Amino acid sequence: MNETMTAAYLPGNSTVEMRTVPVPTPGHGEVLLRMKASTICGSDIRCIYHEHLGKGPEGYQGVIAGHEPCGQIVATGPGCRRFQFGDRVIVYHISGCGVCNDCRRGYMISCTNSQYRRAYGWQRDGGMAEFMIAEEKDLVALPDQLSYADGAQVACGFGTVYEGLQKIGISGDHDVLITGLGPVGLATGALCRRLGAKKIIGIDIVPERMKIALDLGLCDHVLPSGTENVAQVRELTAGFGVERAVDCSANSAARATAIRATRKWGKIVLLGEGGSVEFNPSPDIIHDQKTIYGSWVTSIWLMEELVERLVRWNLHPADIITHRFPLERSADAYALMASGKCGKVAVCQDEELK
Amino acid sequence: MNETMTAAYLPGNSTVEMRTVPVPTPGHGEVLLRMKASTICGSDIRCIYHEHLGKGPEGYQGVIAGHEPCGQIVATGPGCRRFQFGDRVIVYHISGCGVCNDCRRGYMISCTNSQYRRAYGWQRDGGMAEFMIAEEKDLVALPDQLSYADGAQVACGFGTVYEGLQKIGISGDHDVLITGLGPVGLATGALCRRLGAKKIIGIDIVPERMKIALDLGLCDHVLPSGTENVAQVRELTAGFGVERAVDCSANSAARATAIRATRKWGKIVLLGEGGSVEFNPSPDIIHDQKTIYGSWVTSIWLMEELVERLVRWNLHPADIITHRFPLERSADAYALMASGKCGKVAVCQDEELK
Amino acid sequence: MNETMTAAYLPGNSTVEMRTVPVPTPGHGEVLLRMKASTICGSDIRCIYHEHLGKGPEGYQGVIAGHEPCGQIVATGPGCRRFQFGDRVIVYHISGCGVCNDCRRGYMISCTNSQYRRAYGWQRDGGMAEFMIAEEKDLVALPDQLSYADGAQVACGFGTVYEGLQKIGISGDHDVLITGLGPVGLATGALCRRLGAKKIIGIDIVPERMKIALDLGLCDHVLPSGTENVAQVRELTAGFGVERAVDCSANSAARATAIRATRKWGKIVLLGEGGSVEFNPSPDIIHDQKTIYGSWVTSIWLMEELVERLVRWNLHPADIITHRFPLERSADAYALMASGKCGKVAVCQDEELK
Amino acid sequence: MNETMTAAYLPGNSTVEMRTVPVPTPGHGEVLLRMKASTICGSDIRCIYHEHLGKGPEGYQGVIAGHEPCGQIVATGPGCRRFQFGDRVIVYHISGCGVCNDCRRGYMISCTNSQYRRAYGWQRDGGMAEFMIAEEKDLVALPDQLSYADGAQVACGFGTVYEGLQKIGISGDHDVLITGLGPVGLATGALCRRLGAKKIIGIDIVPERMKIALDLGLCDHVLPSGTENVAQVRELTAGFGVERAVDCSANSAARATAIRATRKWGKIVLLGEGGSVEFNPSPDIIHDQKTIYGSWVTSIWLMEELVERLVRWNLHPADIITHRFPLERSADAYALMASGKCGKVAVCQDEELK
Repeated sequence: MNETMTAAYLPGNSTVEMRTVPVPTPGHGEVLLRMKASTICGSDIRCIYHEHLGKGPEGYQGVIAGHEPCGQIVATGPGCRRFQFGDRVIVYHISGCGVCNDCRRGYMISCTNSQYRRAYGWQRDGGMAEFMIAEEKDLVALPDQLSYADGAQVACGFGTVYEGLQKIGISGDHDVLITGLGPVGLATGALCRRLGAKKIIGIDIVPERMKIALDLGLCDHVLPSGTENVAQVRELTAGFGVERAVDCSANSAARATAIRATRKWGKIVLLGEGGSVEFNPSPDIIHDQKTIYGSWVTSIWLMEELVERLVRWNLHPADIITHRFPLERSADAYALMASGKCGKVAVCQDEELK
Repeated sequence: MNETMTAAYLPGNSTVEMRTVPVPTPGHGEVLLRMKASTICGSDIRCIYHEHLGKGPEGYQGVIAGHEPCGQIVATGPGCRRFQFGDRVIVYHISGCGVCNDCRRGYMISCTNSQYRRAYGWQRDGGMAEFMIAEEKDLVALPDQLSYADGAQVACGFGTVYEGLQKIGISGDHDVLITGLGPVGLATGALCRRLGAKKIIGIDIVPERMKIALDLGLCDHVLPSGTENVAQVRELTAGFGVERAVDCSANSAARATAIRATRKWGKIVLLGEGGSVEFNPSPDIIHDQKTIYGSWVTSIWLMEELVERLVRWNLHPADIITHRFPLERSADAYALMASGKCGKVAVCQDEELK
Repeated sequence: MNETMTAAYLPGNSTVEMRTVPVPTPGHGEVLLRMKASTICGSDIRCIYHEHLGKGPEGYQGVIAGHEPCGQIVATGPGCRRFQFGDRVIVYHISGCGVCNDCRRGYMISCTNSQYRRAYGWQRDGGMAEFMIAEEKDLVALPDQLSYADGAQVACGFGTVYEGLQKIGISGDHDVLITGLGPVGLATGALCRRLGAKKIIGIDIVPERMKIALDLGLCDHVLPSGTENVAQVRELTAGFGVERAVDCSANSAARATAIRATRKWGKIVLLGEGGSVEFNPSPDIIHDQKTIYGSWVTSIWLMEELVERLVRWNLHPADIITHRFPLERSADAYALMASGKCGKVAVCQDEELK
Repeated sequence: MNETMTAAYLPGNSTVEMRTVPVPTPGHGEVLLRMKASTICGSDIRCIYHEHLGKGPEGYQGVIAGHEPCGQIVATGPGCRRFQFGDRVIVYHISGCGVCNDCRRGYMISCTNSQYRRAYGWQRDGGMAEFMIAEEKDLVALPDQLSYADGAQVACGFGTVYEGLQKIGISGDHDVLITGLGPVGLATGALCRRLGAKKIIGIDIVPERMKIALDLGLCDHVLPSGTENVAQVRELTAGFGVERAVDCSANSAARATAIRATRKWGKIVLLGEGGSVEFNPSPDIIHDQKTIYGSWVTSIWLMEELVERLVRWNLHPADIITHRFPLERSADAYALMASGKCGKVAVCQDEELK
């Protein structure tokens, strides 16, 4: 194996810095991955690429970027119990201590140990490199039916959506409203479809996103964001409103729309991060006996279940990737993602760079 | 309107007796229906047609037969508040007192008032006649998109299944096992499909039923009943077993199969009536953290929801009806149903006798 | 029986008008009650007594006041099936059509038939009279162990709370926060206690209410409303926050406190009517996987369950009544309630005026 | 520290063999515990002490006995992230691989990795020794308010019960039936009480156990096992039956009693291991809409929650321990437990041997 490798860092001035660094060696309970696909998340752009905004668990600590990594094991440290050389794996994007109550539930995202809670690509080296170290406990097996690019979409994006949808329950009984049709909203459409949802209505402000949602068959109807949205959704649902709504926008008005356009006894889940929401409890949730769920990322065990379902459904999350770049062109990848003129953007190696 | 009408009675010796009786007049809160479709339930054959077996709430009291009625309102008594002349309606098949705790939940099936709990076709006149009296509180509106024959399938059959499926939750996350492919089992397949179930596996002993399940696309796989069923189901589900199982057989061995072929954390609902079940809790449900639900018929309000969903899904319950007879040939209808050489059998009038 | 009776009306100028009117005769499915206890709700003061504010389902139509009535049946109309002369009964405070989907679920509060949805004391004659007509379907049996004054507290107050607590689930596993210690907040404390809640913390601004909550043992800690509330609640709960919170205040800041002072994976239910709420989904509910429930009144069947539990628990809702007046002093009763210098105020007759 | 220690082994002929063995050294992610309390489980007697019955995950592999251990950390291996020297800890009694789907849910009890799934005291050295090695991931912090003897009761006994009670939900709304009043049944009574259960009814055949249940206030009523039990339970519950039932007996007849004595819409959980159950679905669960849960042990994260609750409730599981022995008298401890003339039996050291 090589002794050095290329890796991408984000200095925080809207550039990418490529460095040559030693290929790391896996310690106890760790593996070394040959990176295959590593996608860029909106939060990478917002909180790191343009400027280093976050603090604490959201602070970027000058590590190799990329918190949606997927690759193949090329070496294992001592103490590994399940995964081995050659295994194709997804990496749960936040590595927790593994032994606090949250980690024990599988929700490493909310690990309460400030020393060991480290997000890949934020507080520990991530996937924008030729190789990467991951802890075995953070790995999810990637089945042969899924590509590495599929796998890269699972951890941060599809996993987050799947958790939210489990909380509110989605089946053929439901019409669904999705506010916000970015990658998370598109993933919501794809998963709701497979869970059986009947009519899927999307709302966004960007025509390109709305077109993608329709072209990929992820929504049955798309509405431009506006003050008429609640009335429009009711009209599309025999006057009742949808049984389920998913906010992927983080926009205050859109969240209120999601709540108000939901039918009596309906359920709403908020996934989009940031901002605020304001509504009038009596008409908006009390008189109609509605419930609003907060949902954050997912557990690693539900992520495993999701992967099993993706295979059953023949659903390929990589379908929402519109652009792929080789590692050496990481700068172009980030620049494109920052421009917003794209779907999902991936940095790939080997067979994923076809 | 006519002053007399023809009506079918079941003397209990495997014959049908047609009588001419006065057309009844609706009292307070009642309506008079022009009968359009009235289907025959397995329990009509088992407990009434061959012999009057039941007692109490299951006893036949010499009334006009038919507890799966659907028709059109031709007259209303005083005090009706919702339904009116010309409305197309399904009849919830058990008329309860309306004011006990069970009735107030909508479960008139388990009305605790022995005086007023009367099943149509068992303790009060049912649908095998030209006209029929029903209480307004027992009516479910039949939308234009559904036929009367569709409606006749809702109350006893599809409604019972829908309730059970709501208890265990069915979506695209689930592979489903159905033990018993009679009308209730077929309805289970049809509803699971619309709720999003991925792989549907049926088990029965009758080749004709198995063929119908496949031909109508209600099951993806059908297995002849046998001691290998658990292993076969596991093989069809990557070794795991199904996430959900529905027993529609009432057969002791089949129920144990349903329990055992269900995956860790899975849910089983028992719908089939009669008989017993025996299993070993430790391996069968404790170590795999499974849950077994009993479910009986449904509430009238969930039946209304089901009807709304049938329209959304463009699902026509009448598709499982294989034979239709005019009222005067009721004897042939019951004889055919008793022979078992059929799917669902309906006695129809007017437009339903096309 | 008398031919005329005294009854109280609310002209909307902060006075009560006593009139002599005929004693009514029960129609089909109706009963005549001898009124025993009729309590005053905050909404009676806010929306009717001072001024006729409401519209539609909230509009006062010049009827006899009193929407928390409890009495004894002295006559029954034709068609009654369960209740009879001499029965002691609570009246579900909104009379619905009985046959729409909401009524069939037992939630007459949200009856969708604008003609038949009539609240007692708002759109049809209520309990501030010597006698009152009620529909049999609106009656809940009052057990001998409970007084009429207890019964009057059930429909609007304790029933509403019980429904909300069923939605979020309360047991010995939970510490509970109650924001707002008016009659609904006090009922919440009483019911949480009986459901097993461990530590109950109340927040209010009125010292008298806080004192009542402590004196009656309904709260373990009371906090004056303020910006430190979230920190104070955390301090009282080992830093975690409460597992469950119930807003009975309808105050925007208090609602936000209820949401924020709830622990990871916790549940909040909003009961207080009116106003708005604003919060930041990411820190407030997403990152802590919390759920917010809207809950409105209750079903008549759950109200029956509540009454059964009150007997088991030996819990007497009338304990929060601080003042009782005879019918002829209804004006004093409303004036006191409007002053706020009291707990619950009741207008009583016969044995309830001890 | 000593170089050798005393440890108890179970040769399988109803004796205990004391050996002197080296004090082990903790490896990566492991700790060395000074044992303080180690209780004897019924399964230790049934499957190991008298005879080595079990196979696979239930096979005894000649290791140091004791699968309910509690002690204090005296040394830590490399890689420990949470626990340290001096910490008081409970040991989750089955050590799983930590990285399979079941382990990731926290249910190491059902670890699917046959190499790493090893129960303490069965397939890896347990607590009947002066010192013991445990994996950090298997440890639960023992708060100062609880004794080591309390802690020893948590993993196998109280934890198993708490999980089952979470599945069916227990609060002040419920009367509860417990079939089987051994240590698990007694723990059920203690936890139901703290969760708020109103009336607790126990059934057993052993008078001593029934007396303990009453003396400790864990049951309100105890019934000798018999054919009249269902009728007796109904009589104690106003004719309804209990809302919740917990089988801790593993006895077929008692399980059927638990199912049949449960009220309409009620829930039953089966905890007792082994044997079979037979019932008639229609009258026993279908017509009354009941649900039967299987439940196995618990997750390590729920065990942590339980410990937090024990402190809140001031509940001391050690109260059901009737006899304590020093390590060197382990033989007497096992002999007494095998005789059945006792409650729970503990082998203790240091401060727990007061």
